[in-house]
Amino acid sequence: MMMGPMATTTGEYRAASTTLQVCTSKHDATHTGDGTTLTPKQEVSVHDVTQAVRDAVIASGVRDGSCHLLAKHTTVGLTLNESEARLERDYEKWLLGLAPNEPNRYEHNDLDKRPERPSDLEAIQRNWVNKGLGTVEEFMALEPINAHAHLLTSLLGSSLSIPVIDGELAIGQWQSVLMVELDGPRNRTLACSIHGIGD
Amino acid sequence: MMMGPMATTTGEYRAASTTLQVCTSKHDATHTGDGTTLTPKQEVSVHDVTQAVRDAVIASGVRDGSCHLLAKHTTVGLTLNESEARLERDYEKWLLGLAPNEPNRYEHNDLDKRPERPSDLEAIQRNWVNKGLGTVEEFMALEPINAHAHLLTSLLGSSLSIPVIDGELAIGQWQSVLMVELDGPRNRTLACSIHGIGD
Amino acid sequence: MMMGPMATTTGEYRAASTTLQVCTSKHDATHTGDGTTLTPKQEVSVHDVTQAVRDAVIASGVRDGSCHLLAKHTTVGLTLNESEARLERDYEKWLLGLAPNEPNRYEHNDLDKRPERPSDLEAIQRNWVNKGLGTVEEFMALEPINAHAHLLTSLLGSSLSIPVIDGELAIGQWQSVLMVELDGPRNRTLACSIHGIGD
Repeated sequence: MMMGPMATTTGEYRAASTTLQVCTSKHDATHTGDGTTLTPKQEVSVHDVTQAVRDAVIASGVRDGSCHLLAKHTTVGLTLNESEARLERDYEKWLLGLAPNEPNRYEHNDLDKRPERPSDLEAIQRNWVNKGLGTVEEFMALEPINAHAHLLTSLLGSSLSIPVIDGELAIGQWQSVLMVELDGPRNRTLACSIHGIGD
Repeated sequence: MMMGPMATTTGEYRAASTTLQVCTSKHDATHTGDGTTLTPKQEVSVHDVTQAVRDAVIASGVRDGSCHLLAKHTTVGLTLNESEARLERDYEKWLLGLAPNEPNRYEHNDLDKRPERPSDLEAIQRNWVNKGLGTVEEFMALEPINAHAHLLTSLLGSSLSIPVIDGELAIGQWQSVLMVELDGPRNRTLACSIHGIGD
Repeated sequence: MMMGPMATTTGEYRAASTTLQVCTSKHDATHTGDGTTLTPKQEVSVHDVTQAVRDAVIASGVRDGSCHLLAKHTTVGLTLNESEARLERDYEKWLLGLAPNEPNRYEHNDLDKRPERPSDLEAIQRNWVNKGLGTVEEFMALEPINAHAHLLTSLLGSSLSIPVIDGELAIGQWQSVLMVELDGPRNRTLACSIHGIGD
């Protein structure tokens, strides 16, 4: 094991943040792009978002620091790996082997038994009813059968931290930032915050 | 893919840190709460610690930056997902399906063959013997049969980084910070450090 | 749930970065150490790199902040867990149970069908042909049959963020920083960046 030279920089700290929007439809033409017509149907798909993250780092003006990504959803994973068409299909098949999309395997999919505890009801009221989006019953009627997608999100993780060195993501040449949609198609949002010393 | 506006702030950097203590007994009444009477028996349980993390962010005075959580244990995972009673049971069942609690499957569980190499013995001496807690034999007699819990910790990961924007955790409305106990019940500690620009 | 006292420090921010080099051969004597003679043959091995990370934190002069590690490869995982000989073998067996090294299971391993899409070809041109390393055909002839190693990298994750408090990694006494080689032996590089308030 060997440590390379240590580069140390001091200077004014800056914190920058933005969002990245990604539509995960495999068939862009079939939806309007405004998110209103997309119905999640448990499609799995892999999306290379590296260039968008690189653009965000440049726009942030951070030269030395770190970039933090977080998918603001419970059925989207983030991972670093190779962007290659055949490997993407391997991911899809492998993931669904580890948590099969078989609705009867999972308690979360028994919609008629939810909300089960007071805090589960409160979450629906806070995120749905109190925003004027409808009743609890209307919420449950729209709820996808996607427990396996929640589980796989935790297998992949939904956040990433990447060092920024000399204004660039310090990733390997074969690494891409991959967003793994586990219950698509949907319009998804990544929080992206970049901290460090500016140009 | 679309990038939203970039918000950039500069100012004095601050680093704040604290610990969060979580008792993972499912039956609080059966133990004293001081940690001395808890015996790990490989219970899996999911704990929503979001509010404690939010409180820590407020107490830190950091407005724009990042929050880093790390479970200081080898059998506790951290993940972002929905806090819902039935999904929590799905997690428990699914995880134990991927690494079953079958003692004979794992070499780590053969206590009579440990410590195997010099560095394994040194770790017990450093963390146990040299602290006056007892002999190596006494340590091994207390060691739980929990290899599967170690493995599942690595599947989930035991650290999380969350952007802090405008004084709030930048997580989605359905996301909670979930601590997954994999060898409970125990008293657990999360390191929580929050960095960025203050109020 | 209980929050401990909050320690807050302000001061000049510094960003430090370095690389850690790790050779993952199980039989050091059989290779020259310069990377040129290592042929990946899908060996799985666990490497405790904690001391190297601790050394990097000290060399960085950061007292309060965070340490970010990233394995710059698509077949190397990073995880926090116990460094124990028998558990390491449990990891190896368990991981290969979740994504078996059976070449025919994975599309990525059909080398004769790659590159499949234009962006796959462009990546080979950028990372190989344009660097004068050879032709696309020569690249494919060297490509290992390692789809399972890519998948397992995403299960473990290839980056870690660890709080640095009072100049030390805020990890538990039984936690080590483990680098999990999934397609060894190779010479591997970890990006290590450390940010915060200096001494």
